[in-house]
Amino acid sequence: MSVHTSVRVRFCETDALGHVNNTSYFIYLEEARVQFFDYLGKRSGTDDWPFILVSTKCDFLKQAYFKQSLHVETTVKRIGTKSFTLMHYIKDTESDGVVAEGEATVVYYDFKKQVSEIIPDELRSKLEESYQLL
Amino acid sequence: MSVHTSVRVRFCETDALGHVNNTSYFIYLEEARVQFFDYLGKRSGTDDWPFILVSTKCDFLKQAYFKQSLHVETTVKRIGTKSFTLMHYIKDTESDGVVAEGEATVVYYDFKKQVSEIIPDELRSKLEESYQLL
Amino acid sequence: MSVHTSVRVRFCETDALGHVNNTSYFIYLEEARVQFFDYLGKRSGTDDWPFILVSTKCDFLKQAYFKQSLHVETTVKRIGTKSFTLMHYIKDTESDGVVAEGEATVVYYDFKKQVSEIIPDELRSKLEESYQLL
Amino acid sequence: MSVHTSVRVRFCETDALGHVNNTSYFIYLEEARVQFFDYLGKRSGTDDWPFILVSTKCDFLKQAYFKQSLHVETTVKRIGTKSFTLMHYIKDTESDGVVAEGEATVVYYDFKKQVSEIIPDELRSKLEESYQLL
Repeated sequence: MSVHTSVRVRFCETDALGHVNNTSYFIYLEEARVQFFDYLGKRSGTDDWPFILVSTKCDFLKQAYFKQSLHVETTVKRIGTKSFTLMHYIKDTESDGVVAEGEATVVYYDFKKQVSEIIPDELRSKLEESYQLL
Repeated sequence: MSVHTSVRVRFCETDALGHVNNTSYFIYLEEARVQFFDYLGKRSGTDDWPFILVSTKCDFLKQAYFKQSLHVETTVKRIGTKSFTLMHYIKDTESDGVVAEGEATVVYYDFKKQVSEIIPDELRSKLEESYQLL
Repeated sequence: MSVHTSVRVRFCETDALGHVNNTSYFIYLEEARVQFFDYLGKRSGTDDWPFILVSTKCDFLKQAYFKQSLHVETTVKRIGTKSFTLMHYIKDTESDGVVAEGEATVVYYDFKKQVSEIIPDELRSKLEESYQLL
Repeated sequence: MSVHTSVRVRFCETDALGHVNNTSYFIYLEEARVQFFDYLGKRSGTDDWPFILVSTKCDFLKQAYFKQSLHVETTVKRIGTKSFTLMHYIKDTESDGVVAEGEATVVYYDFKKQVSEIIPDELRSKLEESYQLL
């Protein structure tokens, strides 16, 4: 089960080189992550938000442009004890070609105590569903 | 007394038209406002932050570009009972020419109660100092 | 004829006060403007993009939050010789209540010559359609 | 020779979790990269800008906050035939503690031809100076 997130490139996300600025891809990856968290049944933005991002990367394979229709496909790449890694493919919707590949490592985290915690079984099962179908 | 804020245009703040994107000016105005709040002795970002923005505008007189050295001059344009209006001049530092003019109306606000409050005398005096020298 | 633009608030568009940051509304206004330009038959981002923004403002009536479903309704408020002014209502989609009101004054502009030009009749007619139904 | 870039965290770069949003670090990394390109004698934003970013990552070691004084130290981690990798340490200026570690792989690129090219000797020498002192 991969989660699909549509992306509408905004004009302010381009830069003077005429293409989508590199920092904008991380906005798209965040949006895909948030949608994946929704899929996990964890509504981000709430008081008990249990995730903190510890690392993210993006490989830029092709330049993207304003008005281009993009989407992000998100799956689980790795499931650890207290953390997991998401894999994101940013694709051109028309051609289905990969524009960029992203990764994000997320720690299961208690913001009140400011400590990481072991991923509970229910959440782990949900993550495994996406992992199986990678 | 006007408060000066230097601005380093960031590349991601430009857009595909080759100039600084309109949304970026509001980042600069926010930065100038924060610095003006510091001058007022109100450290923004703290728990008792007493200001909420109710309106802001920007007139774009000239296009601005990446690497251009800008600064913002901020003064008080109006002092009301529960609100005040700031005037911002975004200038090209080399020529001292005005690139854009901004305004911001700020309400004295209690975030816990979520209500506006009368500007206390001490703050009013501080605002008047900037107003006098407009 | 008003143009409707749906807005998905992104998490990075919130700030440490827990609400949508003021600068983010101008991103939404830009998106609405771009969509209005599409309606006008002017595809933004192209070489002959004929519009330059000379002024924009936003009145913040209510705070907006992450995950809130917003949309922008855009109409024409004023049609001049070389410029026109758009009116934007940013609304909460669920309640249809107005969250913020924006305005944008746009000049018909030749980027190559870097001069303003008279709005051609065809474009004026299209603007008038939105103006009539304001 | 490492290049130092000071960073002023802007309020709009925080998010509703109360800390600096992950996407903002990539703004700081871009700013550091631009300053490193200046050091290389390549003025970014010009017509013959010869660099394109192909990959970037950031490991978030500590949360950062509004008003925190940060700086980025940039050195060269790898020099290839047509590309090189920069290493960035984002540090808290007061404590000198590392807040985040970033990397960026940059290709020497001809935007007009849209092809990568071999790094010229003069540029390679300049990169080696930063590499030696890593």
